[in-house]
Amino acid sequence: MLKRRTDLAVEAHDLWRESAEAETKLPGVRAREEEREGFSVTRVDILDETGAAALGKPVGRYTTLELSGLAGRENDVFPRAVRAVRDELGQLLRDIPENGLALVVGLGNRAITPDAIGPRTADRILVTRHLVTGAPEHFGSFRPVAALAAGVLGATGVESGELVRAVAERIHPACVIAVDALASRSLHRVCRTVQLSDTGIVPGSGVGNHRTALDFDTLGVPVLAVGAPTVVDAATLCADVLAEAGQDALDPQALAGGAPGVIVTPREIDSDVEDLSKVLSYGISLALHPGITMADLELLLS
Amino acid sequence: MLKRRTDLAVEAHDLWRESAEAETKLPGVRAREEEREGFSVTRVDILDETGAAALGKPVGRYTTLELSGLAGRENDVFPRAVRAVRDELGQLLRDIPENGLALVVGLGNRAITPDAIGPRTADRILVTRHLVTGAPEHFGSFRPVAALAAGVLGATGVESGELVRAVAERIHPACVIAVDALASRSLHRVCRTVQLSDTGIVPGSGVGNHRTALDFDTLGVPVLAVGAPTVVDAATLCADVLAEAGQDALDPQALAGGAPGVIVTPREIDSDVEDLSKVLSYGISLALHPGITMADLELLLS
Amino acid sequence: MLKRRTDLAVEAHDLWRESAEAETKLPGVRAREEEREGFSVTRVDILDETGAAALGKPVGRYTTLELSGLAGRENDVFPRAVRAVRDELGQLLRDIPENGLALVVGLGNRAITPDAIGPRTADRILVTRHLVTGAPEHFGSFRPVAALAAGVLGATGVESGELVRAVAERIHPACVIAVDALASRSLHRVCRTVQLSDTGIVPGSGVGNHRTALDFDTLGVPVLAVGAPTVVDAATLCADVLAEAGQDALDPQALAGGAPGVIVTPREIDSDVEDLSKVLSYGISLALHPGITMADLELLLS
Amino acid sequence: MLKRRTDLAVEAHDLWRESAEAETKLPGVRAREEEREGFSVTRVDILDETGAAALGKPVGRYTTLELSGLAGRENDVFPRAVRAVRDELGQLLRDIPENGLALVVGLGNRAITPDAIGPRTADRILVTRHLVTGAPEHFGSFRPVAALAAGVLGATGVESGELVRAVAERIHPACVIAVDALASRSLHRVCRTVQLSDTGIVPGSGVGNHRTALDFDTLGVPVLAVGAPTVVDAATLCADVLAEAGQDALDPQALAGGAPGVIVTPREIDSDVEDLSKVLSYGISLALHPGITMADLELLLS
Repeated sequence: MLKRRTDLAVEAHDLWRESAEAETKLPGVRAREEEREGFSVTRVDILDETGAAALGKPVGRYTTLELSGLAGRENDVFPRAVRAVRDELGQLLRDIPENGLALVVGLGNRAITPDAIGPRTADRILVTRHLVTGAPEHFGSFRPVAALAAGVLGATGVESGELVRAVAERIHPACVIAVDALASRSLHRVCRTVQLSDTGIVPGSGVGNHRTALDFDTLGVPVLAVGAPTVVDAATLCADVLAEAGQDALDPQALAGGAPGVIVTPREIDSDVEDLSKVLSYGISLALHPGITMADLELLLS
Repeated sequence: MLKRRTDLAVEAHDLWRESAEAETKLPGVRAREEEREGFSVTRVDILDETGAAALGKPVGRYTTLELSGLAGRENDVFPRAVRAVRDELGQLLRDIPENGLALVVGLGNRAITPDAIGPRTADRILVTRHLVTGAPEHFGSFRPVAALAAGVLGATGVESGELVRAVAERIHPACVIAVDALASRSLHRVCRTVQLSDTGIVPGSGVGNHRTALDFDTLGVPVLAVGAPTVVDAATLCADVLAEAGQDALDPQALAGGAPGVIVTPREIDSDVEDLSKVLSYGISLALHPGITMADLELLLS
Repeated sequence: MLKRRTDLAVEAHDLWRESAEAETKLPGVRAREEEREGFSVTRVDILDETGAAALGKPVGRYTTLELSGLAGRENDVFPRAVRAVRDELGQLLRDIPENGLALVVGLGNRAITPDAIGPRTADRILVTRHLVTGAPEHFGSFRPVAALAAGVLGATGVESGELVRAVAERIHPACVIAVDALASRSLHRVCRTVQLSDTGIVPGSGVGNHRTALDFDTLGVPVLAVGAPTVVDAATLCADVLAEAGQDALDPQALAGGAPGVIVTPREIDSDVEDLSKVLSYGISLALHPGITMADLELLLS
Repeated sequence: MLKRRTDLAVEAHDLWRESAEAETKLPGVRAREEEREGFSVTRVDILDETGAAALGKPVGRYTTLELSGLAGRENDVFPRAVRAVRDELGQLLRDIPENGLALVVGLGNRAITPDAIGPRTADRILVTRHLVTGAPEHFGSFRPVAALAAGVLGATGVESGELVRAVAERIHPACVIAVDALASRSLHRVCRTVQLSDTGIVPGSGVGNHRTALDFDTLGVPVLAVGAPTVVDAATLCADVLAEAGQDALDPQALAGGAPGVIVTPREIDSDVEDLSKVLSYGISLALHPGITMADLELLLS
């Protein structure tokens, strides 16, 4: 079992490997690395309950994109990152009918920067449901898309899961795409990684620690999760700092709870969250509307 | 029938009086002026369909508060304005069960300042539904309150009326309070007036021209509307400017459409909208939670 | 003499023509129309004091770009607009030494959207003064550029002209580029026009009505002014609306003062100001750094 | 000498005590604790160069207010905190002529929340210089006050110290009050502590690590510094977390550099910075204008 909490399947897998005999193969899990658009892509498929128990995550597909260079705004990294998200999400969308309504949901708290990736992504999705319905003669060839920032319980009195269920029951999407900020155990992944999965959102995950699940069981339709880590917890940071100082004999679990209410983020968290939200909103919009180009989006959304 | 569009019943009534014989009494309408907390209060009750046809508004009670001095931030005007909104809304809430769930809905577009009063008010309501449900031993004496900014069709693909219906069907409020920015025909009322009514929101009203009604018929529960005018239309402005120049022979209708896509606002619109949203969020929160003081709210919400 | 106030030389010239005999030529003024990047360009050169008195503006060159299509975000309008600003400003910069320090100053009030073009443009200038000084081995080939948002008197207690003089006296720029929001007399020009001139900023101009001049006389170096109209005044709007209704016999001056404290802006003022600020910051940065491409700027500034 | 960097004299003193023999008295330093408005106040006076060398800070007076309860918005904590800042700053202002011009300077980067305390405080100072000069018959009894957010080098090309010097040379203040975000070595002090001193700002201090000094030597007038810690560095956090886990044998210096580019802040950093900026702007404004009440400020500034 894992000693440190992480929202990333790739980290759960790494931790398992660190703790296991070097040559052991984890039953019920298949992992492989590839490359897309110049970025490293790691796929962790949890195949059965054995794998799920080992990694502490539901059965399903988990894809991790490492968007190295995004923070530095290296040449052409933005369009490459958008295409990578588009194509990976496109794979997860293969079984959803081409013209099925997609509901994109941004989870998290707009007022806390590292938790704002969900709402800011939802704000910039190319929505078309009203156009497809209202002017089918012009927009009938588009997939209908709706988007929603679900708010936070303390500000609305309504659990975000409850709100999404209410809307889904009324507009009947063919799938839900839930976007959320995640916690990572590695400083090196924060604000430069995207995880896509077909398992929905699990209670207790995300920066805001969601209370209820958003998945096939609760919503009755496939739920794809798109997340990006924006924080590490303090104990995790300390374990990393100690390791780099050559002092990793400590059990990181012993540090847990040592700094409650603290968040650890990159210094450039404001621009990092802005950049990541843009990559996600563009990538998701292009995956949902394959006929649209990035230049079209620049005009329609910027 | 009215020549100029207005969202304010008090203006519809004024227009009718201007156009009518001086001594005529409008059948089906009762109007009277009072004072509360030093502000002028006008009550226009539309009693039947004759009155409704004459004023172009549904049967119901309309209360207009003129918050003179608010823009200048005169001494103690803020607490007086809050108490006036609290007490007037309290009257409209008399028939709602004391512990009935209230859903406060902010209509309008957060990204366009004069249309942002609804969402900004909803952001600062003291919500308690999750507390009453989750910790009834501590919060059982509170009225459960939820709040929601309904977003705009172009950004969500979901009509705000549709979203409110979806949520209302799920959480079953005892009443809905809909907050919205309005259009006035008078420069002198803009950003210093609040209208409260028990008739809900009518299609075509508000700065954003809502498409569907939010009222008892569509939601199945009483809908109270709280609005504040933040814009005048260009034709209205011109008629006013001409009148002040002594040249009011023109039919204002002849000017309509002369400046499409233009909005006319006070120069201080940013701080005006901030101030009004604060007055409304405080007044509504205090009307819903009679046991709470303004000082409590300052601590809980600011 | 002009009946209506305008900050645009091209409008002052139009007004003069409307009021003059059809065939008369205005002495001391040369005006001509051209095209650049598909946009209409009007050049009004005020050659002497006769022309200055007739148009109510100082002797100098005034170039007006009409960026039609910018609001609609038509295809490729953004890069064309940036290149047009770059090239027109480049002409005004011809006599400034290539490696002379340029100080870009944003005038206006960040908190009032239509007055925020200056500060928002200054925020996104590619500044290099600290790099050229601090690491000449890497950046010695760049022109040193500094940028400053000058704040507003009511918030700082220091006149913006005073602040610019203080900084100019200390850092000794070879030229100052002052960016400001203007008032137009035509709804059709608002938020889609840019005026460039070599005369600096005149007291009483701009949305905020600056108190002191920023020009060669006060700063001792050439001052280029870059402005964009974001408001029309209420009397101007009314004259326009009346004219469109076929009732233009009125003297617009008679309407002046009819709606004090009111501003008239496009409905989309928030995104219009954002777009214009981006065009100006990119155009100015490219004019000052001829070796840089727009793609470079996207990476460095966005 | 100190192993860990801190901007707080009270922490430097604590560190010295921890490292020293229990009974030793530090020569050249006088420290004592008091209480004001229910808050703990620690005064560390560095009396001579021996004390300065021991604590790594210039000779002068350092006062630390611990604003316990501020984050929780406990009853009346805001007015008490404002009065405490007002009174402590009042003591440092005793030798400045009553009607001498005060220049309040906000240091730091507005775009990075934990570094934004300086600019946000400067934004809300009650400035009067223009009123005292422009309408002495009404405002002659006020102290002239100017305020300035100094910007950041990467965005302006002008060092903030250079900008402040330029303005000071032009407007000749009797004193400068420099407001800045600080780094603390203790999680428990972050966002709930204010340090006031009469020594100005030292190079390398603050969240943004200022390059040049702002003090009597560079500006020629007394410089009071008002700062609040908003971050801890990662190595410091780890040492604290380890200590709480009972494992403090490690030399914290060994951890330095383990997490470059990371900031550690409270989860509620956005509202914390908002609250602290308000406390500082109110406290400073009241110290500079003894005739004004907090209620006056609420009306004039909010």
